[in-house]
Amino acid sequence: MKLDQCINFLLSSAQNVVFQYFIQKLSPYNVTPAQYGVLNCLWNHGDLTPKQIGELLVLEASSTSGILDRMQKNDLINRSIHPENRRTILVTTTKKADNMRIPFENIVQEMNQHFMNNLTDEEKDLLSKSLMRIIQMNKRENSLD
Amino acid sequence: MKLDQCINFLLSSAQNVVFQYFIQKLSPYNVTPAQYGVLNCLWNHGDLTPKQIGELLVLEASSTSGILDRMQKNDLINRSIHPENRRTILVTTTKKADNMRIPFENIVQEMNQHFMNNLTDEEKDLLSKSLMRIIQMNKRENSLD
Repeated sequence: MKLDQCINFLLSSAQNVVFQYFIQKLSPYNVTPAQYGVLNCLWNHGDLTPKQIGELLVLEASSTSGILDRMQKNDLINRSIHPENRRTILVTTTKKADNMRIPFENIVQEMNQHFMNNLTDEEKDLLSKSLMRIIQMNKRENSLD
Repeated sequence: MKLDQCINFLLSSAQNVVFQYFIQKLSPYNVTPAQYGVLNCLWNHGDLTPKQIGELLVLEASSTSGILDRMQKNDLINRSIHPENRRTILVTTTKKADNMRIPFENIVQEMNQHFMNNLTDEEKDLLSKSLMRIIQMNKRENSLD
């Protein structure tokens, strides 16, 4: 079997190429791709619990917690007690993070353009849909646990 | 911008789902996905130098070297001196590794099937091609260094 027939090789290698590119683009802001993912969730959905963030980003609870710790240290998020349920924590973005929103949107748009430049609109759509289907298979499997 | 419009999120999340699945399937053999990648290169191309393996797997030299160290410890590969060039190292698979070739082909085929089950043949082809294009962009950029 050739390597390019293995879905794990294709995804790992492509992910590695894009991830390294994204790390470089975000590094002047001292933000990692995973931290960008958290900020993006909060910008789109408003304040969220750590559990909700983990679900949106398809992350384990322990990974989410580690990412949030480092973000709080770096003054990108705050954790506060949910006003309606004192046992729940709510994550909110800081002003420092919010100032990065527009530059980050530009970086992501430029990155998408860079890597999908050779694809037609139809091909781009199909790539996104195929990847979303794989991501959603995980959610379905976990919900059967 | 929604997360599913970010190529890094799509690839990272899909890769994570497939990678975790592959880790589980390979774990009875005490082999990681990256080590499988090396074995697959050697099975397809015959003996290779560490540099050639790194190029095929799109890995940094230091990563390749660490993977090969662990594989040698686990009796999956041997490193020997190239018969025609004493300054070059050649990597070969062991008998122990070769005995895993057929079970691993079955695992990968089943994994591909599992994750691309919902895609038509045309969609599968396009997914592979789009991912290969992203991978090859990296090779082109590096060769311009």
